[in-house]
Amino acid sequence: SKLDPDSIIEWWNIPYPKSFDVSALKQQNFIRVDGNQFVDDKGKPFTFRGMNIASPDKLIKQGQWKKSLFKELKDWGVNTIRLPVHPIGWRMSGKENYIGLIDEAVLWANDLGIYLILDWHSIGYLPDGLFQHPMYKTDIQETFEFWQYISARYKNVPTIAVYEIFNEPTDIGGKAGSADWLEWKALNEQIIDLIYAHDKHVIPLVAGFNWAYDLTQVKAHPIERDGIAYASHPYPQKAKPNPRTKEAVFENWTKVWGYVSETYPMIATELGWVKEGGFGAHIPVIDDGSYGPWIIEYMEARNISWTAWCFDPEWSPTMIHDWSFTPTQQGKFFKQVLQSYN
Amino acid sequence: SKLDPDSIIEWWNIPYPKSFDVSALKQQNFIRVDGNQFVDDKGKPFTFRGMNIASPDKLIKQGQWKKSLFKELKDWGVNTIRLPVHPIGWRMSGKENYIGLIDEAVLWANDLGIYLILDWHSIGYLPDGLFQHPMYKTDIQETFEFWQYISARYKNVPTIAVYEIFNEPTDIGGKAGSADWLEWKALNEQIIDLIYAHDKHVIPLVAGFNWAYDLTQVKAHPIERDGIAYASHPYPQKAKPNPRTKEAVFENWTKVWGYVSETYPMIATELGWVKEGGFGAHIPVIDDGSYGPWIIEYMEARNISWTAWCFDPEWSPTMIHDWSFTPTQQGKFFKQVLQSYN
Amino acid sequence: SKLDPDSIIEWWNIPYPKSFDVSALKQQNFIRVDGNQFVDDKGKPFTFRGMNIASPDKLIKQGQWKKSLFKELKDWGVNTIRLPVHPIGWRMSGKENYIGLIDEAVLWANDLGIYLILDWHSIGYLPDGLFQHPMYKTDIQETFEFWQYISARYKNVPTIAVYEIFNEPTDIGGKAGSADWLEWKALNEQIIDLIYAHDKHVIPLVAGFNWAYDLTQVKAHPIERDGIAYASHPYPQKAKPNPRTKEAVFENWTKVWGYVSETYPMIATELGWVKEGGFGAHIPVIDDGSYGPWIIEYMEARNISWTAWCFDPEWSPTMIHDWSFTPTQQGKFFKQVLQSYN
Ligand SMILES: [Mg+2]
Ligand SMILES: [Mg+2]
Ligand SMILES: [Mg+2]
Ligand SMILES: [Mg+2]
Ligand SMILES: [Mg+2]
Repeated sequence: SKLDPDSIIEWWNIPYPKSFDVSALKQQNFIRVDGNQFVDDKGKPFTFRGMNIASPDKLIKQGQWKKSLFKELKDWGVNTIRLPVHPIGWRMSGKENYIGLIDEAVLWANDLGIYLILDWHSIGYLPDGLFQHPMYKTDIQETFEFWQYISARYKNVPTIAVYEIFNEPTDIGGKAGSADWLEWKALNEQIIDLIYAHDKHVIPLVAGFNWAYDLTQVKAHPIERDGIAYASHPYPQKAKPNPRTKEAVFENWTKVWGYVSETYPMIATELGWVKEGGFGAHIPVIDDGSYGPWIIEYMEARNISWTAWCFDPEWSPTMIHDWSFTPTQQGKFFKQVLQSYN
Repeated sequence: SKLDPDSIIEWWNIPYPKSFDVSALKQQNFIRVDGNQFVDDKGKPFTFRGMNIASPDKLIKQGQWKKSLFKELKDWGVNTIRLPVHPIGWRMSGKENYIGLIDEAVLWANDLGIYLILDWHSIGYLPDGLFQHPMYKTDIQETFEFWQYISARYKNVPTIAVYEIFNEPTDIGGKAGSADWLEWKALNEQIIDLIYAHDKHVIPLVAGFNWAYDLTQVKAHPIERDGIAYASHPYPQKAKPNPRTKEAVFENWTKVWGYVSETYPMIATELGWVKEGGFGAHIPVIDDGSYGPWIIEYMEARNISWTAWCFDPEWSPTMIHDWSFTPTQQGKFFKQVLQSYN
Repeated sequence: SKLDPDSIIEWWNIPYPKSFDVSALKQQNFIRVDGNQFVDDKGKPFTFRGMNIASPDKLIKQGQWKKSLFKELKDWGVNTIRLPVHPIGWRMSGKENYIGLIDEAVLWANDLGIYLILDWHSIGYLPDGLFQHPMYKTDIQETFEFWQYISARYKNVPTIAVYEIFNEPTDIGGKAGSADWLEWKALNEQIIDLIYAHDKHVIPLVAGFNWAYDLTQVKAHPIERDGIAYASHPYPQKAKPNPRTKEAVFENWTKVWGYVSETYPMIATELGWVKEGGFGAHIPVIDDGSYGPWIIEYMEARNISWTAWCFDPEWSPTMIHDWSFTPTQQGKFFKQVLQSYN
C-alpha cells in the first residue's frame, strides 16, 4: 500500500493562527483584580452584572445570532454577557469557524460597552475525564488547547474580561470519578499559567465542586496565582437549611462560598429559578420566587458580581418566553434589578 | 470564516441515556460475593459455568446474532455466557447501537435463566496506552466512559452478574509499556468505584498480568474493594513444568493464580485448547487434550467458576466447527462436562 | 436503535503488522554507540553527515518522492538523510500508507549506502500536550504507538540507524505548558525502553529544551539508558554573545550543548542559515554566512555528527532554489563540505 497523493491535504500550508485585531475596537476599560474587588484602568471599582445567553452555535443554528440580541440585553440593563462554549460545539464546529462567532460577539459587545465572560461550558470531573452528558465531554488536552488558542487570539482585548476555566466541576457523587481539590487546584494553576503566558490583561475565573457551588476548600488551599477570581453557581436548591429562613440560607451561602468574597473577587456566573411545574423546572433551580430578592440582596451587600441564567427561551431557568423577548417571572425580576443600576 | 448553520448538529437535544427497563425481566437471582464464593440472594453457593461467544457485532455481521444461539448454549448446559466487547467494535458501532445488542443478550439470557459476564475485551497495558493489535486499542478515558455508561444502563439487572474490567493485561515483555501492579491495582480500584457509584449489585472482576494468567501479586497487594472477584486465563501452555506431570501443572496453577481462590471467588473466564496443527492453533492454546480433564478437576476441586473459549467456528480454540454447532474435540469435552451438572 | 450489519467493518480480520523484510537489503553496517562516538560493526568510528529532506508525504504530493532525489543527495556527498515525519501527516495518511513511503526510503538509501535518521517531527511540550502549530500536534499515546509500530517494523534494519524520539521539545516560554527536565527524561526513557523491547540495533536520539538547542540539564540528569545519543539544533541566532566573536559563540555552544559530546555521541540534526531578507528568513536562522564555517569547524573538532536543514526549495533555510537542485548560498557551502569528505 502506498499513499495516494490526491488524498493528501497540504498541512504544511496551514497558516499560524492570528490574534484578534484590537484596532477594530472602541476604547473600553480593562478590568482587573485589586484585593477582593474588580477595578477598571483608573482603579475605580467595577461590578459585573448581566446574563447568560445560549451557545453561539445554538443561536446561529436557530437564526438568533445577531447584534440585536446583544442590543436587547443592553436595554435590559446588563453590563456583562456570559458566553457558554460547550466542548462538543467547539469540537464539531472547528475552532476557526467557532472563532468567527466569538469575534462577532466581541465586536457587538464592545460597540455596546458590554463585557464578556468566556466560559468553557463543561460539567464533570476533568482530571478523571468523565462528564455528565456527551455535550460536556472534553479532556485535559482539548481544554488546554482551548485556552491556548483563545488566550492567543484575544490577548489585549478588554471586552473579554473574564476566562471561566471550567463551568461546573463535579464528580457526580462518584459517577464521574473522584474529585480531589488539590488535584483540581493544580490543574487550574496550570491553565492560569498557560493563559497568562499569552495575556496578562484578563481575569481567570475558578470554580469549585458540587456543580460550582462549593468553595469551602479555598480557605485552606486557595489557587496560588495572582489576579484571579472565584465563581459560584448558587441555584436556589443548593442551600437546604431547615427551616428555610432567609438568615439560614444566607448562613449556608456564606459558609459554602460567600466567605470567599471577603478575600477574593467573586462572580456568581449562574443563578436563577423557575417555579415548580414551570418550563424546564429541575433540581436545583426550583423556587417560589423568594430566592430572587434574597440572592440579589446577598450579592450586592458583598459586591459580588453576577450573571443570571439564561436569556434563552429553551435553556431553563429561562429569562424569556420567546424570541420577542417576553419576560418570564424571573425575567421581569432581573430586568428590573439590572435597570435599577443604570 | 463563519460557521454554516446547516452543518450544526443539535447537540443540545441529545437525550440523557436511560437505564435498562428491569420490569421487562423475569425473576432471576442476583449473584454476589460471600467470602471466597459466589452466592445467590438466599446465600446459596453458585458457580458460573459456561462459554464465551464472539462479539455481538461480529455475530450480527455474520447473521448469527439470534436467540437460538443462546438456546443452543443452554442445551449444551451453560449457566453463563461471556460477552467480549472489543473496544474497536464499541467505538465504531456507536455506543447507542451497540447497547441495542447487549439489551437483546440480556433479554435472551434472562428468559433462558442464563447469566452474562460483560468483558471489556482489550489486550495490552492500559496505563501506558499500548495494545497488542488495533482491535484492542483503547485508552483510560474510553475505558472509564465504557464502564460509566454500562453500569448506568444495566444497574439492578441481575442477568449481567459480572463486569470483567479488562480482559488481558500485559505489557508484552516491554513491547506494550511497562506493567506495574500498584499502578494497575489503583486503576482497577478507580473503575470499581465508578461501577459501584452506579450499581452495587454487580461483581467487578479483576485480571492479572501475563494475558490474565498471573495473579501472584494479589497476595501482597490485593484489590482493596469489597465484593469483587479475580479472573485467570489458564490456557494449557501457560504452565510449563518439566516434566509436564499433572501434579507439576497443578503446582504451577496454584502458585500463579489458583491460590487466590482460597481467599477470593475466581472465574477462569477463558480456557480451552486445540491440537497442534488444528484450526487456529497458536501459543498458548496448543495441547494434546490431556489439559481438559486436568483443568476441570482443578477448578471444580476449588469451586472456581469458568467460561471456556470459544463458541464460534472462527475464534480459536473453537468449540464448534460450523454454525450447525458440530462440536470440535474440546467442544465435545466441555459439552459433556457442562451437561453433567444439570 | 440497533446496529446495521452493513455498517460493520470486519475489524477481526485486520492482519497483524509485519516486520520489514531485511532479506531485500544489501549488506550495510549497523552503527552503534561506543563511548562518545558512533562505530560500525567492526568498531570503526563513524560520523553521520548529511541533510534533511521534507516529509515523504509532502514530497509525494509534489511529485518529488523518487529515488533520484536520494541519488542527488548522494552526489552532494551525504552519508545520511534525515526523514522528518510530522504527526499530522502520519495520522492523516494512515500508518499503513505512510509506512509504504518509509519502506521505499529504506530501499533507496540502502542501495546507495546511505543511513537514515527517522525523526518524529513535533514541536512543543509533549507531557502537557501543547504544540506550536496544528502540524506538530500529537499526544503521548500516539507518540508511543508511533515508536511501537516503527520499531516493530524496522527491527534489524541497519539503514535506519537512528530514531530521533521528538524533534524540538519546548514549552514556548509557557505558551505550550511548563517544561520540566525530569519529566521529559522519564518520558524519553519510557520510549527508549519501548524501542529496545522491539529492536536493540538502533540508536535512540534525545533532544533538549529550547527547540532542541539546550542540553544543559544532561550534566546533572543524563538519560539513564545505554546506547543512546543526544541531538542539538544549533541555528545561528540561538547563541547571542555580545560581541559576536567566534570564540564567544563557541563558548556558548560548549556551555549549552557541545560539552555533552565529551561524554556522549551527538548529532546536530538541524542547522543552517539564510541571509536577512532571503527566502524564508526567520528567527533563529538568519545569518550573514559566517556561521557556516564556524559550525562545521566546531562540530568536526569534536566529532559531532550533523544533518543540515533542508534539501527542499520550500522549507527554509533552503539548500536548493528549485527541483533542478540549484544550490542556495548555504547549499553551495554544505555541498562543498560534504564532498570534501569523500
Ligand atoms: Mg481580554
Ligand atoms: Mg483522582
Ligand atoms: Mg447486574
Ligand atoms: Mg508506567
Ligand atoms: Mg535500525
